[in-house]
Amino acid sequence: MTTLSLIGIGTGNPDHLTLQAIREINAADLVLIPRKGEGKADLAELRRAILREVLTNPATLVAEFDLPVRDEAVADYRERVDGWHDAIAGVWEAAMGSPRPARVALLVWGDPSLYDSTLRIAARLSPAPDLRVIPGITSLQALTAAHAIPLNTIGGPVTITTGRQLRDHGWPEGAETLAVMLDAGGAFMAIPSEGVTIWWGAYVGMAEEIVLAGPLAEVSERILATRAEARARHGWIMDIYLLRRM
Amino acid sequence: MTTLSLIGIGTGNPDHLTLQAIREINAADLVLIPRKGEGKADLAELRRAILREVLTNPATLVAEFDLPVRDEAVADYRERVDGWHDAIAGVWEAAMGSPRPARVALLVWGDPSLYDSTLRIAARLSPAPDLRVIPGITSLQALTAAHAIPLNTIGGPVTITTGRQLRDHGWPEGAETLAVMLDAGGAFMAIPSEGVTIWWGAYVGMAEEIVLAGPLAEVSERILATRAEARARHGWIMDIYLLRRM
Ligand SMILES: C[S@@+](CC[C@H](N)C(=O)[O-])C[C@H]1O[C@@H](n2cnc3c(N)ncnc32)[C@H](O)[C@@H]1O
Ligand SMILES: C[S@@+](CC[C@H](N)C(=O)[O-])C[C@H]1O[C@@H](n2cnc3c(N)ncnc32)[C@H](O)[C@@H]1O
Repeated sequence: MTTLSLIGIGTGNPDHLTLQAIREINAADLVLIPRKGEGKADLAELRRAILREVLTNPATLVAEFDLPVRDEAVADYRERVDGWHDAIAGVWEAAMGSPRPARVALLVWGDPSLYDSTLRIAARLSPAPDLRVIPGITSLQALTAAHAIPLNTIGGPVTITTGRQLRDHGWPEGAETLAVMLDAGGAFMAIPSEGVTIWWGAYVGMAEEIVLAGPLAEVSERILATRAEARARHGWIMDIYLLRRM
Repeated sequence: MTTLSLIGIGTGNPDHLTLQAIREINAADLVLIPRKGEGKADLAELRRAILREVLTNPATLVAEFDLPVRDEAVADYRERVDGWHDAIAGVWEAAMGSPRPARVALLVWGDPSLYDSTLRIAARLSPAPDLRVIPGITSLQALTAAHAIPLNTIGGPVTITTGRQLRDHGWPEGAETLAVMLDAGGAFMAIPSEGVTIWWGAYVGMAEEIVLAGPLAEVSERILATRAEARARHGWIMDIYLLRRM
């Protein structure tokens, strides 16, 4: 029986690693590192840097594998994602080898529970491994920490959503605080800015971190320009923001 | 100028501490530990245990202080909370002493951004310290890790809310996944259980951890009974759950 550990590593600050994550990495026979291709090279390199720093067990092997790309020829979104997850599960199988090692670890960006497909891919493995999930600091926590702000108002609800949801469905009914992730760029322009404050961050937790905040009407253009410039300079960007109506 | 660090410590598993939290604790001149009184003794003791394990700087002092209690004679909720936060800020001032040390640290349960008043209390200090926030693993992450489940459906939104909100306002319009915290007990009984799945956990991340999951209609009574029994046995309880409509 193989135990597969999905280990949250935080979103770019190696110091966000927990003691549990470090122990779990060192308990593994094999650690798998996905390579996503040129533009996002930093993310694979961050995983390598983490292992250089915390992996002390000489018996632990490390294997890198290339993530397959999504087949954009498949028109239906769900079908495209499903096919992609199947393909990744196949690549994991190959990288684990046969017979599978007793303990395999995967380093997951942020927390494995938040907008991440690793758990869904793991569910495709056959025979099913024993799954362990090690929580990690999310980009949302790195954002609120960088701004030194609470996520919620006192006793108030918070909705975590995607740029696509915000664009397609607008401000959710009854929401007070919205955290937006996976935004291809500027979905906040799709909502009325009246009375909305934004706390924005790119590369949060990383050396490249940029944060901006203020009334949405006043800072939205500056965020768009900053985002475009940073993206051009680094070749890639990940950003996240909190919107609050007051 | 004093730097006040609010350090997230996770929700009961000392291994959830991050490397950043450990460095920050050891960089402090003074670490403040709140005492909440008998029933919740475990929480102060966990902070002491963490310091015994990770505090290696001999120059760092540790001071405990008693948290004031809320004045239940004040009828208005907001006023009562405001007065309580003022009182806590006063107790912090006294515990820090005068002149204030250059670096003071507070160990915050879970993450300082999530349903926690530490940031709001810190904002009352005068002169205002330089604030640093160190993210920590939340109880919500400990819950999803314990169940090995994703927080969201693919690309779907998630609302984090309180037991009181769920009781008073029901299932939020358009919500698919609800994470419920700060529930005085069984607020999930206030919603129609049809088509709803629950993933529940008490003392998540701790040695006492209990988890239950299933269709809400089938497991709600068992959760209520388990909660009552555990609460009686330990003298206190903290629980959290995820609800999803499918
Ligand atoms: C596929 S999701 C993964 C989220 C991750 N599991 C987490 O816990 O944060 C990727 C999205 O997370 C956010 N994100 C991840 N890392 C980030 C970072 N360092 N700075 C800003 N946003 C980040 C962005 O919104 C990005 O589009
Ligand atoms: C005042 S809030 C603090 C939340 C904390 N800042 C966090 O990040 O999880 C307290 C609520 O958090 C949840 N909670 C905190 N620790 C928990 C634990 N170990 N197990 C279950 N729920 C917990 C419960 O819903 C509890 O009512």
